Amino acid sequence: MPKGFTLWFTGLSGSGKSTLAERVRDILLERGMRVEMLDGDEVRKNLSKGLGYSKEDRDTNIRRIGWVCHLLTRNELVAIAAAISPYREIRDENRELIGRFVEVYCKCDLNTLKDRDPKGLYEKALNGEIPNFTGVSDPYEPPDQAEVVVDTACESVEDSVRKIIGTLEQLSYIPAGDGRGYSEEEEETIKQRLRDLGYI
Amino acid sequence: MPKGFTLWFTGLSGSGKSTLAERVRDILLERGMRVEMLDGDEVRKNLSKGLGYSKEDRDTNIRRIGWVCHLLTRNELVAIAAAISPYREIRDENRELIGRFVEVYCKCDLNTLKDRDPKGLYEKALNGEIPNFTGVSDPYEPPDQAEVVVDTACESVEDSVRKIIGTLEQLSYIPAGDGRGYSEEEEETIKQRLRDLGYI
Repeated sequence: MPKGFTLWFTGLSGSGKSTLAERVRDILLERGMRVEMLDGDEVRKNLSKGLGYSKEDRDTNIRRIGWVCHLLTRNELVAIAAAISPYREIRDENRELIGRFVEVYCKCDLNTLKDRDPKGLYEKALNGEIPNFTGVSDPYEPPDQAEVVVDTACESVEDSVRKIIGTLEQLSYIPAGDGRGYSEEEEETIKQRLRDLGYI
Repeated sequence: MPKGFTLWFTGLSGSGKSTLAERVRDILLERGMRVEMLDGDEVRKNLSKGLGYSKEDRDTNIRRIGWVCHLLTRNELVAIAAAISPYREIRDENRELIGRFVEVYCKCDLNTLKDRDPKGLYEKALNGEIPNFTGVSDPYEPPDQAEVVVDTACESVEDSVRKIIGTLEQLSYIPAGDGRGYSEEEEETIKQRLRDLGYI
């Protein structure tokens, strides 16, 4: 059972990637797994200082995160990445490199993000004060084959966490928890998605 | 026993870092340990593309390797780094970050390196064709507290490997092998060094 995998959160700034990643990490740690989390900001500091937000620099940053996830995964750890990772091609390159790769698309509509905007980033971006801001002045390519899609505009954090944990359990990437935690309806939705993707 | 550590090879180009690192890796794998090797060249490709050989860029490269070794080590893996890593201060920063850090100084005099010179790099560097070539036109600061010093100009690869494995065994960082592998005299030399460094 304890084989490694990478759980990759993608989505716009403020869509809930880090929040969900931390909650899932804590649950996996409680279940005795070894987990390393690579948060976008920490990675920019430690691996990608000097890189900016052009497409090329973003791609380089995401490839580096992918390479480290690859090292961790092949050593039977769980790597959790939380980074905007706007370009599908680069996420898919990482998927290819890593193998056991579970993509979580943190969907959230722009109006909700503008309303939340705890750091005032969307306001600034919409006023043109931040160039290359993903979702406003820079593209975001949503995944079309993500193993999990959470819509953080209308789901609670708990709803989203249950979907993610449920998916990992159904894939047998993690041991089952004490109770199933999710309803039969939720389980069926998870299974349907995994069937559609050819997993089960 | 299976706690992680980082084995850090430092020394001039051609001094034997990668050769020794690979041999040691193979022995550790045979003993059932999980090992990840970060070779200078592979790291430059995957983590540090675009960086050059100025002091600042070298420091950034070595800090990145250190950070990845830190992630691996804290997850109870053995990380092996083989990179020139010419500056003492940055190696010591990595030592500080990582904690369980064993430095192997691959010493080799310049004349021997010039004689070996399989890629003709020293010849080119001495002719001024390669700027910032460590040991010729760029500084190398040898460690003064390395846990292991191997002198590859006068020791065989086997001699050096025994010293490294012996040191890791004496530190109880790895389980003992089938036979001790090294002589009583070699063992005493290893222990004396570890005593001098305050380990035992």
